[in-house]
Amino acid sequence: MFHETFHDDGLAHLSYLVGDGGAAAVIDPRRDCDTYIERALAHGAQITHVFETHRHEDFVSGAVELAARTGAEILHGAALDFDYGEPCREGDTFRFGDVEIEVLETPGHTFESLSLVLRDCSTGDAPLGVFTGDALFVGDVGRTDFYPDRAEEVAGLLYDSLHQKLLPLGDHVLLWPAHGAGSVCGSGMADRDWSTLGYERRHNPRLQLGRGAFIDAKVAEHHVKPPYFERMERMNLAGPPRVPDRPRPTPLSVSEFARHVDDGMVVVDIRSPEAFAGACLPDALALPLDMLPSYAGWFLPAQRRIGLVADHADDAIEATRQLARLGYDDVLGYLAGGMTAWEVSGRPYDRIRAVPVQTLARRGRPGDDYLLLDVRSDEEWESGHLPGATHAPLDALTEHLRALPDDRPVTTFCGSGRRAIIAASVLKRAGFDEVEDCLGSMAAVGAADEDITGALEI
Amino acid sequence: MFHETFHDDGLAHLSYLVGDGGAAAVIDPRRDCDTYIERALAHGAQITHVFETHRHEDFVSGAVELAARTGAEILHGAALDFDYGEPCREGDTFRFGDVEIEVLETPGHTFESLSLVLRDCSTGDAPLGVFTGDALFVGDVGRTDFYPDRAEEVAGLLYDSLHQKLLPLGDHVLLWPAHGAGSVCGSGMADRDWSTLGYERRHNPRLQLGRGAFIDAKVAEHHVKPPYFERMERMNLAGPPRVPDRPRPTPLSVSEFARHVDDGMVVVDIRSPEAFAGACLPDALALPLDMLPSYAGWFLPAQRRIGLVADHADDAIEATRQLARLGYDDVLGYLAGGMTAWEVSGRPYDRIRAVPVQTLARRGRPGDDYLLLDVRSDEEWESGHLPGATHAPLDALTEHLRALPDDRPVTTFCGSGRRAIIAASVLKRAGFDEVEDCLGSMAAVGAADEDITGALEI
Amino acid sequence: MFHETFHDDGLAHLSYLVGDGGAAAVIDPRRDCDTYIERALAHGAQITHVFETHRHEDFVSGAVELAARTGAEILHGAALDFDYGEPCREGDTFRFGDVEIEVLETPGHTFESLSLVLRDCSTGDAPLGVFTGDALFVGDVGRTDFYPDRAEEVAGLLYDSLHQKLLPLGDHVLLWPAHGAGSVCGSGMADRDWSTLGYERRHNPRLQLGRGAFIDAKVAEHHVKPPYFERMERMNLAGPPRVPDRPRPTPLSVSEFARHVDDGMVVVDIRSPEAFAGACLPDALALPLDMLPSYAGWFLPAQRRIGLVADHADDAIEATRQLARLGYDDVLGYLAGGMTAWEVSGRPYDRIRAVPVQTLARRGRPGDDYLLLDVRSDEEWESGHLPGATHAPLDALTEHLRALPDDRPVTTFCGSGRRAIIAASVLKRAGFDEVEDCLGSMAAVGAADEDITGALEI
Amino acid sequence: MFHETFHDDGLAHLSYLVGDGGAAAVIDPRRDCDTYIERALAHGAQITHVFETHRHEDFVSGAVELAARTGAEILHGAALDFDYGEPCREGDTFRFGDVEIEVLETPGHTFESLSLVLRDCSTGDAPLGVFTGDALFVGDVGRTDFYPDRAEEVAGLLYDSLHQKLLPLGDHVLLWPAHGAGSVCGSGMADRDWSTLGYERRHNPRLQLGRGAFIDAKVAEHHVKPPYFERMERMNLAGPPRVPDRPRPTPLSVSEFARHVDDGMVVVDIRSPEAFAGACLPDALALPLDMLPSYAGWFLPAQRRIGLVADHADDAIEATRQLARLGYDDVLGYLAGGMTAWEVSGRPYDRIRAVPVQTLARRGRPGDDYLLLDVRSDEEWESGHLPGATHAPLDALTEHLRALPDDRPVTTFCGSGRRAIIAASVLKRAGFDEVEDCLGSMAAVGAADEDITGALEI
Repeated sequence: MFHETFHDDGLAHLSYLVGDGGAAAVIDPRRDCDTYIERALAHGAQITHVFETHRHEDFVSGAVELAARTGAEILHGAALDFDYGEPCREGDTFRFGDVEIEVLETPGHTFESLSLVLRDCSTGDAPLGVFTGDALFVGDVGRTDFYPDRAEEVAGLLYDSLHQKLLPLGDHVLLWPAHGAGSVCGSGMADRDWSTLGYERRHNPRLQLGRGAFIDAKVAEHHVKPPYFERMERMNLAGPPRVPDRPRPTPLSVSEFARHVDDGMVVVDIRSPEAFAGACLPDALALPLDMLPSYAGWFLPAQRRIGLVADHADDAIEATRQLARLGYDDVLGYLAGGMTAWEVSGRPYDRIRAVPVQTLARRGRPGDDYLLLDVRSDEEWESGHLPGATHAPLDALTEHLRALPDDRPVTTFCGSGRRAIIAASVLKRAGFDEVEDCLGSMAAVGAADEDITGALEI
Repeated sequence: MFHETFHDDGLAHLSYLVGDGGAAAVIDPRRDCDTYIERALAHGAQITHVFETHRHEDFVSGAVELAARTGAEILHGAALDFDYGEPCREGDTFRFGDVEIEVLETPGHTFESLSLVLRDCSTGDAPLGVFTGDALFVGDVGRTDFYPDRAEEVAGLLYDSLHQKLLPLGDHVLLWPAHGAGSVCGSGMADRDWSTLGYERRHNPRLQLGRGAFIDAKVAEHHVKPPYFERMERMNLAGPPRVPDRPRPTPLSVSEFARHVDDGMVVVDIRSPEAFAGACLPDALALPLDMLPSYAGWFLPAQRRIGLVADHADDAIEATRQLARLGYDDVLGYLAGGMTAWEVSGRPYDRIRAVPVQTLARRGRPGDDYLLLDVRSDEEWESGHLPGATHAPLDALTEHLRALPDDRPVTTFCGSGRRAIIAASVLKRAGFDEVEDCLGSMAAVGAADEDITGALEI
Repeated sequence: MFHETFHDDGLAHLSYLVGDGGAAAVIDPRRDCDTYIERALAHGAQITHVFETHRHEDFVSGAVELAARTGAEILHGAALDFDYGEPCREGDTFRFGDVEIEVLETPGHTFESLSLVLRDCSTGDAPLGVFTGDALFVGDVGRTDFYPDRAEEVAGLLYDSLHQKLLPLGDHVLLWPAHGAGSVCGSGMADRDWSTLGYERRHNPRLQLGRGAFIDAKVAEHHVKPPYFERMERMNLAGPPRVPDRPRPTPLSVSEFARHVDDGMVVVDIRSPEAFAGACLPDALALPLDMLPSYAGWFLPAQRRIGLVADHADDAIEATRQLARLGYDDVLGYLAGGMTAWEVSGRPYDRIRAVPVQTLARRGRPGDDYLLLDVRSDEEWESGHLPGATHAPLDALTEHLRALPDDRPVTTFCGSGRRAIIAASVLKRAGFDEVEDCLGSMAAVGAADEDITGALEI
Repeated sequence: MFHETFHDDGLAHLSYLVGDGGAAAVIDPRRDCDTYIERALAHGAQITHVFETHRHEDFVSGAVELAARTGAEILHGAALDFDYGEPCREGDTFRFGDVEIEVLETPGHTFESLSLVLRDCSTGDAPLGVFTGDALFVGDVGRTDFYPDRAEEVAGLLYDSLHQKLLPLGDHVLLWPAHGAGSVCGSGMADRDWSTLGYERRHNPRLQLGRGAFIDAKVAEHHVKPPYFERMERMNLAGPPRVPDRPRPTPLSVSEFARHVDDGMVVVDIRSPEAFAGACLPDALALPLDMLPSYAGWFLPAQRRIGLVADHADDAIEATRQLARLGYDDVLGYLAGGMTAWEVSGRPYDRIRAVPVQTLARRGRPGDDYLLLDVRSDEEWESGHLPGATHAPLDALTEHLRALPDDRPVTTFCGSGRRAIIAASVLKRAGFDEVEDCLGSMAAVGAADEDITGALEI
C-alpha cells in the first residue's frame, strides 16, 4: 500500500493520498490537484474516490476539480445536502487493493463530519490509522462555533464523537487530521503532523476533560471567523467552479499596473515585512507571502481584481495558487520588474518606519504623543502587554478603525512585528498619515534587557 | 520539531532526521549523506549528533562521512568496541530543542543494538516514537543468526528487548525501524514503513509467540548471509573510508570499455531483464538496477573494477551511488552510447532466450532434454515447484555451479523471471552454452490456465 | 533583448522565443506550449505575437493553442488562406521593445513560406538574424516536393528566395531555421542548430549550385512523405483542436490493457530495441521512444486508440506528448508494471532473436535459407549492401509486405539494427513467424574484421 | 558536435563547452565546475582540454579545479609564465571528433591573450566561430588599461589583433566572448551574448575607428579596477586553490551570529535594497544578491570572515557560490531565521529612510541642509546631475569618505537607487548617523513630471 501526506504550508491544510493495487483515494483535496494525480501515477494507480471529511470552511474544496480530471467518485457525509457527489454513511466500506476505508460519522465540528478508518488487510484487521478531518487534531480538537444557537449541542456531539467513536479505535491507531499547526481551524495544535490516538488520549489537553467540562470549554472558546468563510461554505456546498486553465499571473508593466490601480485593482504586496517597510506602493495591502493564506480572507474583498507586488515571479505564481485555494481567481498579474520598476518610474511611494524596542523605551509610555496599537489576539493581550498600549485584534481591526484617533503617529505592534506590518498597511490605506511598525514587538520586549523593560514599565 | 524519513529503495534502508530549535540528529545514515545536510538546512538546523542503532552489516555506515562534514558527534551502543564515535548507554538522553532522545539498550539482533525513544517535550512526557534499528520492524523482528554459537541466547535477548523494553513503551508509540519491506534483514516485513507498537503487538506474527516459541522460531529461521556482509561489518567497526570526491562514472568508449574488460573489469549490466535477454555483452553480469542493491553483494567480488552497461547515464550514476553504499568504490565508468554502441562496433554479443510458460508446457517435464533451474529460496521451493525442476537458491548458486550438468540447455526460473536473469548471466559467465530465462516463471505458472498447469503436471 | 531556441529532439523541430521590453514573439510553436509562456514570464514578458513561417506538414502547429492561452495574434503568409490568424506580407514589421521583426516572403518549400528578419535596434540597423522556416537549414535547404505538378516552378521559387532574399541579407546574419538534423524535412542537415548565412553560402552544398543545377537537383530528390503529413496539413490549415486538458496517460492493469487490445487498441512499445527483442507483446509495434516522432506517422493509423508499453511512467508521459505533437490524441494509457506485469500474468509473449554479424557470416549468403531484409533508404542501399539481401525501405515496407516470401526466416537489417526492430515488429504483426533483427547491421559489418566481411562477400 | 554557453549572471562571465565524438573542451571555466562535467556526460563526452583565453582578473579561474576532477590538460597563452598548465601558440590545433580548435594569439587586453577558432570539419573548412576571450565582445572590445606604462602599445596590439587576426576570419564567423553585458570588463556591451564578426564589423562602435583613433580612445578610457583584481591575477597566475569540499553556508543562530560579529565577522546583507532600507543589522554591508558579484570585490576585505543575512537559505547558498568565484572562501554561515530572528531577539537594528524624488523636490537644493551624494560613475555624472549634489563614484567612495561632511543628513543617489543602498551602508559603517537612499534616483528624476524637475532645477 502507499500513503502520502500533502502539507499545505499556507493554510496548514493536510490532505492524503492512499491506495493499493492500482486504485487510490484522496482525502480532503485542495483545488490545485495535479500533485495527487502525479503521485498516484508514480504508484501505478488511478484515483477512483475522493472523500471529503466535511464541508470545509477555510478553503475551496478540490473534490470537483479532481473528480472532473480523473473520473473519481466524490463521497460526503449524508447529514448535509451537497449539490454534488454522493452521500456515505456509518459503516460504509471502500476497498483499494489491500487497503480498506470504513466510514465513521463523527459530528461536532459540523453535522456531516466524517472520520475514515484505514485498515491494511494484508497485515491485520485492527485499524491502522484514521483520517479525522476537523474532529481531532494533533494537540487540539475541532472548532464547534459554527452553530452559535446550538453551541452546547454540537460541543456535546464532538465529545461523543471523540470518546465514543475515535478513541475506542485504540491507542495504537495513527492520526491523520485535516489541519496542522497554524491553521485557523484550531489554535492549540502541535507543530508536527503525526501522532496516534493513544498519544492524544494522554496529552491532548481537550481530551483530558470530562463531558461537562469539555462542553463548557468549547462553548467558552473564542474563534476568529474570517469573512471569507461564508463564501467558502457556499462554494463547497454547491460545488466550486473549475480551476481556471493554468492560473498564472501576468507580468504587468508599471503603467499597466498603475492604470489597473486607478480602475480599482487592489495592490497586494507579498514581499517581506522589512521590504514593505522599506518602500511600498501608496495604497498597497501588506500580505507577506507566508501570511497570505491566513490573512487574505480578512482583508481582501471577494470581487475585486488583484495585482501583486513580489520580489520574484515565482512568488507571484505561488501567491496566485494560494489565492485560488481561497477562491480568489481574479489575479490580474504582478508588477513587472518589482518594486524597483515602480521606484525608477518616478511615481511616489511610501515607507513604514521600523521602530526597535530601544526606541520605544526612549519614548516612554505611549498616549498623547503616539499610539501603540497592539493587534494581537485577546489571549495574547491578556497574557501581558505594554502599559499605555491600545488593543485592536488584527481580525477586528477594520471595525476598530473608526474609533482610533488619527491626530498622532501610530506604531503597530504584535508578537513579532509581522502581523503589525499588515495592520500598518491597513491603517495607511484608511488614511492614517504617520504609521510605524515595531519589528520585533512583544518577542523583542521579552528578550530585551532590564533597561528597556524598565523604561517600558513592564 | 521536524522528522523526516529517508527510504532507500534499493536496500529498503530507512534512516531519519529529527530535530528542533536549530539542532538535529540523524539515525543510521547512509554513506551519501548530502541529503541529510540539505534537509537539516531547510529546517534551519545543524546536525549535531549521529546515532547508529547497531553495527550495520548490509551497507556501509554514513556516520563517519556525515560527522566529517558536519562536525557532529557519533554515538554507538557500548557493547561493541568501535574504532570511532562514542559509546552511549541505557538512559542517556540528548536534547534538540523540544525533542528528547533517550537510549534503550535492546540487544538481540546484535549485542550492542540500541533503540532510541523520542519525546516531544512541548506536548507531553510520554514517548512519541521509537527508532528500533533492526530490533523491531513493521511486520517482523530482526535477524538473530549472526552468532550461530549463541543462537538461543541472542534470540532470548531479542525477545526480552521486545517485550521488556519496547512494547512497554505503550501501544501509542510510533515505530521507526531501520529497514522496510525488501530488505535482507527480514523477510516478513509489511510493504509500508509506518506502524505503531500497538499495531505490531496485535498483528506482528513474531510478537504473538511466547518466549520459548519465539526462541525456537528464531533459531529455526534460515537467513541468507551475502558474502559482503563480513566486509561491511569490518568497515563499520573500524570506520569506513570517506566517500571518494563526487563519485561519478565516466563514459567509456567501446574500445576503452573493451580494453578494460580485457584487463579484468567486471561488466555489470543494469538494464532490464528483457533488454539483457535481447542482447548483452558476452561476459556481462546481469544486475538490473532495482535488484542491484540486493544482489551485488552476492556476485560482485570486492576488489575488482566495475564497468556498467546502462540505458541512460542517470542510471549509471544511480548504480554508482548504490554500489558505493555497499563499499564498491571502484566503478570505472559506463559504456558510452549504451548497448547500441557495442552492437554497431561489430563486436560479438549474446542473448538469453526468453521462454514463456506456454513453451515450457509444450516441452513437457524437464530432465534429460533440458534443465529447469529454479533459483528461488528454500521456502519458496518448498511451497511448490515444477516437477522435474532442479533447485539451487540464487544465494547459493555459485556453490551449486560445479554440480550442474552442462550437456543440456538450462532454463532459469524463479518467482517472476527477474532473479532468473541474474542466474542466467552467472551460468553464462561460468561457461554454460545454452541458457534461457523463463520470464514470468512461477507467477506466470500460477496465473496460467489449466491446459498449461496440466501439461506442467501441477 | 532575449532569444531562446527550443529544440524538440524527436522531430528535430526548432521553435523560438524572442522579445524585449515586456513583449515577445514565438516562431513556429509546438502544441505543448507551456514552456514558451514560462520562459517569457522569466523575462518579464507577455507573448503578443505568434509567427508561422509556413503551414507545417510534419507536426501539429501550436499557434492556436498558444494564442488561446495568451491572447497573442497569429501571423501567417498571405499566399495561403488559413482559417485562423492574420496574413502578413513582405515588408511588414513588428516591434518588441528594441527588437524588430520584418517579414520576407520566401516561397519555394510552400507558396506562403515566410522568413522573418530580426534586428536589434539598440545596436544597429543591419539584420542580426533570420528565421528561415523550411527555406534554409544548416547544411541543407527545404523540400520542394509537395507540389509534384509544379516541381520545377517551386524549386525555382526556392532558389530565388535563397539567392535574392536570404543570402543578400549578408554573410554576418545568424541563421534560425525550423528544423535541425534528423528531421524528415531535409536529409543533409548538420548536427548543430546554429550557423550564419555566410557559413552556409560557403559550405551548404545546395547553395553551391547555379539556378539550373539547383532546380535539377531538387526535382530529382526523393523524399519520404509519411501518410500523416496530409492530416497535419489539413489540421494546420483549419486550425488544430485545443490540446486535451493535461494529457497524461493512465496506468492500465494487465487485464484492462488486454481487454483494450481485444477491442482494437494498437500496442506501441517504446522500450529499447534490445528490450523489445528480449520480450514483447504478441502484436506490439516497436517504436523506441527516440524514434517515435520520426516513425509513428508511418505505422500508426490516425483513428486507432493507442496503448503504450514503457520501462517508466515518465517515458509514457513523454511518448504521449510526442504523439500529441503529431495529432495522436487518443492514447488510452500504458501497461502498469511494464513488461514484467505482462510476463507474470501468464499471458504469452514473443521475442525477436538478435543476430550479430558473426552469425550472418557463419550462415553465408542469404536466399532460400533465410531472407535478409534491408530496410534502409534507396541512397543507403545504393551506397553498399550485403550480397543476397532483399531491399524494402522502411517507409515503403507496408507496400512491400505482400511480395515478401513467408516460407523462410527473415532477418531485418538497417544501418544499426534500430530501424530493423521496427521492421521486425511490422513483419510479426503481418503474420511472419520467424523474425530476427541484426542488431549492429551495416555499421557492424563496416567495423568487423576481414574474416567476417570476407564471409559476407563484401 | 555540441556547443553550450554558460552565462554566469553575476559576473556576466561566459564560458563554453564544445566537443564531439566523446571528447570535449571547456573554455574559461569558472570555479564551481560541476555543471561542465555533467553537461559533457549528457553528451557522452569526457573533458580532455581546458583553454584559458587569458589570465582572468575578475574571477578565480576554474581551470585547476576542473583539470583536477577530469584529468584534462590546461592550455594557456605562451606569453605569460603560468605556474600550471601548458603553453600553446599561434597555429596549434586540437581535435575533438569533428571539431577543430585552432589557436590565434590576440594580445592587447593582456599580452598572452588567445582567441580560439572553431571549425566543424564535418561541414567545411571555414571557421564557424571564434572564442575571443576579452579581445572582442558583443558591442565593445577589451580593456587595455592593465599596463598603464605601455598604454599605447597594448591598445595598438589590440587593434592589430582585432583587425589583422579576428575580422579577417570572415563576416560569417560566430562570436563567443568571455563576457556579456554587465561585466566590469567592458562598459558598452549589448544585452545579448551572440553576434557575428560581420555584425560587429558593422555596428561595434570601437571597430569603426582607425588605428590612431582607436588607440587614442582606448588610452583615454577610464575603467574601474576593483581592489580584488590584483588578488585574482595572483591566484590565476599561480593556480588557485581547490574549491573547499561542498561549500555550503551554515545556519547560525542569532547569538552565534552576534558573537561572530563581535569577533570581527563582516555582515553582508544580500536582501533587496528595500528590505535593507526597512531594517538591517547595525554594521551590515548591503550587497543585494544580484549586485554581489560586481561590488563584493570593492568593499569586502580579502581575509575577513563573512556572515550573510538573506531572505532564503537558497540565496545564501548562491551568494556563497558567487563569493567563491571571487576567491572569498571564508563564509561562516547565514543568520538562521533571517532578519526577523534578529528583530525578535530584542537586539537593536537600523533602517535607511527611502526618499522619493517628490521629497527631494520639496526639500529644494541640497547643500547645508543635507548632502545629496551621487555615487554614479564619472561618465554618468557628466551626462547630467542634480544641482547641489556631491559626487563620489561608488568605486572610489572609500577614498572620499574622509572628505565628506558628517554634520548633516546624507541622501545617497545613483541611477536607480540600488548602488545608493550599498553606498548608504558604507556610510553607516563609517559612522555617518543619518543616511537616506533616494530609491529611484536619476531614473525617477528623468521620468518625473515638470513640477518635480522644475523644483530640482533641472
